[in-house]
Amino acid sequence: MFKRVVIMGVGLIGGSLALALKSRGLVKEIVGISRSPDTLALAQQRGVIDHGSTALDQQSIDQADLVFVATPLGAFPAVFSQLATLTLPENLIITDGGSAKGYVIEQAQKAFGVVPPRLVPGHPIAGKELSGVGAAEASLYEDHRVILTPVDETDTAATETVEQMWKSVGACVEIMRPQYHDEVFAATSHLPHLLAYLLVDLLNDHPELGNVFKYTAGGFRDFTRIASSDPVMWRDIAEANAPAIAKWLKNYRQELDRMIEAVERHDQSALHELFSAAKTARDQHIVKKS
Amino acid sequence: MFKRVVIMGVGLIGGSLALALKSRGLVKEIVGISRSPDTLALAQQRGVIDHGSTALDQQSIDQADLVFVATPLGAFPAVFSQLATLTLPENLIITDGGSAKGYVIEQAQKAFGVVPPRLVPGHPIAGKELSGVGAAEASLYEDHRVILTPVDETDTAATETVEQMWKSVGACVEIMRPQYHDEVFAATSHLPHLLAYLLVDLLNDHPELGNVFKYTAGGFRDFTRIASSDPVMWRDIAEANAPAIAKWLKNYRQELDRMIEAVERHDQSALHELFSAAKTARDQHIVKKS
Repeated sequence: MFKRVVIMGVGLIGGSLALALKSRGLVKEIVGISRSPDTLALAQQRGVIDHGSTALDQQSIDQADLVFVATPLGAFPAVFSQLATLTLPENLIITDGGSAKGYVIEQAQKAFGVVPPRLVPGHPIAGKELSGVGAAEASLYEDHRVILTPVDETDTAATETVEQMWKSVGACVEIMRPQYHDEVFAATSHLPHLLAYLLVDLLNDHPELGNVFKYTAGGFRDFTRIASSDPVMWRDIAEANAPAIAKWLKNYRQELDRMIEAVERHDQSALHELFSAAKTARDQHIVKKS
Repeated sequence: MFKRVVIMGVGLIGGSLALALKSRGLVKEIVGISRSPDTLALAQQRGVIDHGSTALDQQSIDQADLVFVATPLGAFPAVFSQLATLTLPENLIITDGGSAKGYVIEQAQKAFGVVPPRLVPGHPIAGKELSGVGAAEASLYEDHRVILTPVDETDTAATETVEQMWKSVGACVEIMRPQYHDEVFAATSHLPHLLAYLLVDLLNDHPELGNVFKYTAGGFRDFTRIASSDPVMWRDIAEANAPAIAKWLKNYRQELDRMIEAVERHDQSALHELFSAAKTARDQHIVKKS
């Protein structure tokens, strides 16, 4: 399928795609780019990449047919600027794994002057709280969703190739507008991550209560699992999708106000309705799915 | 250890204690009390109880040495009132599994006129999102914490017997003041449950986005697992521990306001600090524990 794939940012997301492509014989050669020589050494040792480099040069890109940008979002401006200084092969496809698509498209436009036609913005929905190339696995994308958000400028054939690639490693691909993507993931992913971080911080900030964490049970552990996610990744997402995230935090705050009011005026029927509706929705949409 | 144990409310919590005591040979006979004949039939079929009744009578209580109240908190006033109409054997111990201890003690005082010396208020920390006697299991309390909150009036020997009982079924027992219990569990259990319900409701209330639940991943499923808990149970907890819960919801709202502000003013270092502190605390206190 590919002669040479360049992975920019060899972590969980980039490393898992590399392993998935290699294990299925879909790529001849993987070049990994990372600022950290330790990461490159570990990636090579685990068989994730064939060659590693701390910076991308013209020679590496000459032979490449795909670049997968899988750094934290904060590094995208630098990555795109670096790519823009090189002469890219005519058929080279650039795709990525960033969680905020409007931002990725905007940064590409800034670096290249236009949105590159062979940039296919993407977002594999397959995070876990572990990060780094040590956590990468060939099966990460199997039965997971990958969202692609091509824009008007995007080359249809490039989108099809990227779609094909993700399907080949077991993912279900869905195409949507970048704005819709950013709205939906602000609500379903970014919001809960921020809420989970907030709860752990809140409990951590009350030393007068003693170590309350020892009284937490399985529910708390599950609720806060995502608060063990990579802080840099989430700082960057909060920055890159700030307007949609702020909007959903405020939506949540409004509901929280209503709940506080219901608790304080002992409105048992309002609370029962709220809890029942949530249980019904979750049991229907989430439990069924899992 | 016991001749006859009466379980008031034969669900996950009551049924699991019954199974735990029976499987270890610690009780001769279990009497289950439930308003629902179906529940009693299922409990008998599963071997959870030996006899069942839809109401407690004098004859059943005459032979009992322990009553375990495991109904939702909203039924406690009726249960205590019923018990107060009976002549209780001198050595009968009453204990319970309610999640709000101040409320339980207050309701007992209302029904009996005084806090009964042989009432040992308790709270096993062993919920799961499944409820009902069908989910009961003998091992539920193994390696789980049970909090006992005796007050000045409480008979020390009664507390020791209840402590011994929980230890015998594998639990770790801790004694604390009821007020401290209610504060800590408002923060570590009641707050996250309400936050999880709220998130599912919020996403459910935006039909203009389509069914966004299909884009949720494992993190969302875990975060909201507790939103599949029994709505009646949680309505009652929200009522019974309302002041502490309202306080912690407001504490959370205050942190949420700070986060919204940080996202809107693009304060990346504040967000990074917040996320890092949470990850560090969780990795230290929760991951280590599990």
